Amino acid sequence: MNIASYTFEEFVQKVRAFHGNPAPGVILGGIMVDIARRNLPEDVLFDAISETDKCVPDSIQILTPCTYGNGWMRIINTGRFALSLYDKHSGEGVRVFVDPEKVKAFPEINSWFFSLKSRKEQDKERLMAEIKNSGTEIFGVHHVMVDIKALSSKEEYKYAICPICKESYLANDDNICLACQGKAYLSEMKYQ
Amino acid sequence: MNIASYTFEEFVQKVRAFHGNPAPGVILGGIMVDIARRNLPEDVLFDAISETDKCVPDSIQILTPCTYGNGWMRIINTGRFALSLYDKHSGEGVRVFVDPEKVKAFPEINSWFFSLKSRKEQDKERLMAEIKNSGTEIFGVHHVMVDIKALSSKEEYKYAICPICKESYLANDDNICLACQGKAYLSEMKYQ
Repeated sequence: MNIASYTFEEFVQKVRAFHGNPAPGVILGGIMVDIARRNLPEDVLFDAISETDKCVPDSIQILTPCTYGNGWMRIINTGRFALSLYDKHSGEGVRVFVDPEKVKAFPEINSWFFSLKSRKEQDKERLMAEIKNSGTEIFGVHHVMVDIKALSSKEEYKYAICPICKESYLANDDNICLACQGKAYLSEMKYQ
Repeated sequence: MNIASYTFEEFVQKVRAFHGNPAPGVILGGIMVDIARRNLPEDVLFDAISETDKCVPDSIQILTPCTYGNGWMRIINTGRFALSLYDKHSGEGVRVFVDPEKVKAFPEINSWFFSLKSRKEQDKERLMAEIKNSGTEIFGVHHVMVDIKALSSKEEYKYAICPICKESYLANDDNICLACQGKAYLSEMKYQ
């Protein structure tokens, strides 16, 4: 099977290079991106939504122009292993998801996906062979209309200087930056 | 100037390929990643935090093994143009940020960053030349201790089947998936 313009094996190498390891979740995500893309008009300008923060965002970033940093990929975390690609102007698009009913026919994928075996018991080679063999069979496809009005933020963002930490911050809503409002992750900070 | 193992021009091409266009923010982010990396021990296994969802996440994903989908890059959105790289075991690391005081010496960067000119008035070529010329001069560097305990979620995640939509979802906390709890982005969904 092919995944977009790659053979299965080429895509596994792509995943290894970007994601650090050939994670089954990123491979499945790649097949999902490919299904969604083939169900969109060829010349459409599309955005992407991943419904999970695990693996799938990397499949999207490897195979499409949509990245986290350019804003064309969004994460709307519903906890589901699903993604949508959609026309960024009309919202018309395609949603692809793992269909639990269909996964049942593939025991290695099923036991990996639903954590029925411990990591040690998993046979990675058989799992990858089954993923390659299952192709597009474990997925469901929806035609969807994405609520792009609800998603879009037309507001121009603007940097200002936070009066407390003196750093630049996006000042659209607040008089001080979010870090100075308590959103911090550091227990220590020293100037070099 | 070089950015990691790339010349400035090579990095601009890398940014164009991944991000879709050679955005100044991704270039600045690349210089920030490079500063942070050079301030860490060479053999350290590090994670990354971006304090903004704009541009910087792509700099991190281009130049480090940390991606959104593998979980080694997190977004803690404080609104500030800053990032941290840190030892994933100890939390010890380096934070790099745009220092507004230092930016003042570079008028093109200053007026782009603080939106003092309209897009039309901006001279993209001069801006890029000034970024190349400013090198590491507009940034501040902190040595930091990241609160890794607060960040880590050691909980093993597990998929189950949502009794409402019948899709698989991460079932650690809830009996139904987040979409069926109302976190939706679709105004229409039809099975193919």
